[in-house]
Amino acid sequence: MVEKIYVTYNDVHKLCQEAAPKMLSIFQPQLMIAIGGGGYVPARILRSFLREPGSPNIPIQAIGLSLYEELPMSHPSNGTTGAVEKIGTRVTRTQWLDLSSLGEMENLVGKRILIVDEVDDTRTTLEYAVKELEKDVEAARAKLGREGEKTQFCIFVLHNKDKKKKGTLPADMMEESRYMAARTVGDVWICYPWEATDIDEHDKLAREQANKTGSSS
Amino acid sequence: MVEKIYVTYNDVHKLCQEAAPKMLSIFQPQLMIAIGGGGYVPARILRSFLREPGSPNIPIQAIGLSLYEELPMSHPSNGTTGAVEKIGTRVTRTQWLDLSSLGEMENLVGKRILIVDEVDDTRTTLEYAVKELEKDVEAARAKLGREGEKTQFCIFVLHNKDKKKKGTLPADMMEESRYMAARTVGDVWICYPWEATDIDEHDKLAREQANKTGSSS
Repeated sequence: MVEKIYVTYNDVHKLCQEAAPKMLSIFQPQLMIAIGGGGYVPARILRSFLREPGSPNIPIQAIGLSLYEELPMSHPSNGTTGAVEKIGTRVTRTQWLDLSSLGEMENLVGKRILIVDEVDDTRTTLEYAVKELEKDVEAARAKLGREGEKTQFCIFVLHNKDKKKKGTLPADMMEESRYMAARTVGDVWICYPWEATDIDEHDKLAREQANKTGSSS
Repeated sequence: MVEKIYVTYNDVHKLCQEAAPKMLSIFQPQLMIAIGGGGYVPARILRSFLREPGSPNIPIQAIGLSLYEELPMSHPSNGTTGAVEKIGTRVTRTQWLDLSSLGEMENLVGKRILIVDEVDDTRTTLEYAVKELEKDVEAARAKLGREGEKTQFCIFVLHNKDKKKKGTLPADMMEESRYMAARTVGDVWICYPWEATDIDEHDKLAREQANKTGSSS
């Protein structure tokens, strides 16, 4: 049986809070791209902690990428996870960037951009996101004739699963300053709170787990 | 001094869980539009509870609307909220719909669409969102020549503030089946968890408040 780990909302909050100062000192992102739906919650939390006094919020663009497809199943009568999913082989876009609304951010050329998702599992989604974003940036750069300006992408995930990946990222994106996982875990089943059908039970399981391992997140 | 109410992540989770069956039975949304950043967290949670067994997730489109502007301030040395904001008079778009990625949802004509935000404060943002979305739908409808198909918008917010509103919504959107606020509160300062600089202290204040009023949310 696959080991499950239970992550509470407050765990997610603290993982973002813990990572933010490092992001600000090393990377200083100017734009966040949240991969939906899993990236929505960490991106919103990160925005609070990346905001510097006297400065406006860092704009967030949400993109929708879908890799998993549901297997039809009967509804579980209890338990904290209500759906069974299988890993799809294809990434589907449900939303992409809206550069026309970003004002001076209208092109990504020369910017420092933080891509946010909840988990780096097979890396397929992240590979897709980075490749497609780099393609868009390269097209914009060529069109604008801005040769020297380098766009930098950086990745933040709550959890990276230490496993054989199907997707790959450019080697320079795997540097510590460009790829940040708040926690690295084994090939476990991560139960995020936004999928819990009983959030009190979910938190209880998370507490029991923390007591057993002697760690709080 | 303005009264503050502290809302925990688990409160937000439960408010969404409580509202979802009503949404499914009355409105049956086919698409969610999350108004970012505040709508990101409730939209992601709602997605879990609006998913019906054997059906795919309801797609979420995020839009970015910004109404508040920050006042420069020094950093508070403690406390759970780290920024002072003033209410702006202008809604700024930072992201709008990406209809090209939505596949068969590529136009909104004839669909049931759920707009999600965290709070209905002055109603300015919601007025803007509904007006602009209706404009887009009407343009698409006219272009497609689909006369009879009516698009329906529905609103969900975690909290509606019972106060004089600056923005207005069409009268038929204020019906119980089209406008859902999980809670109606006075003109108080709502402290959402994603803005807490100390989430444990935030939860403690929320618990103390619940003990005082004898309610859990």
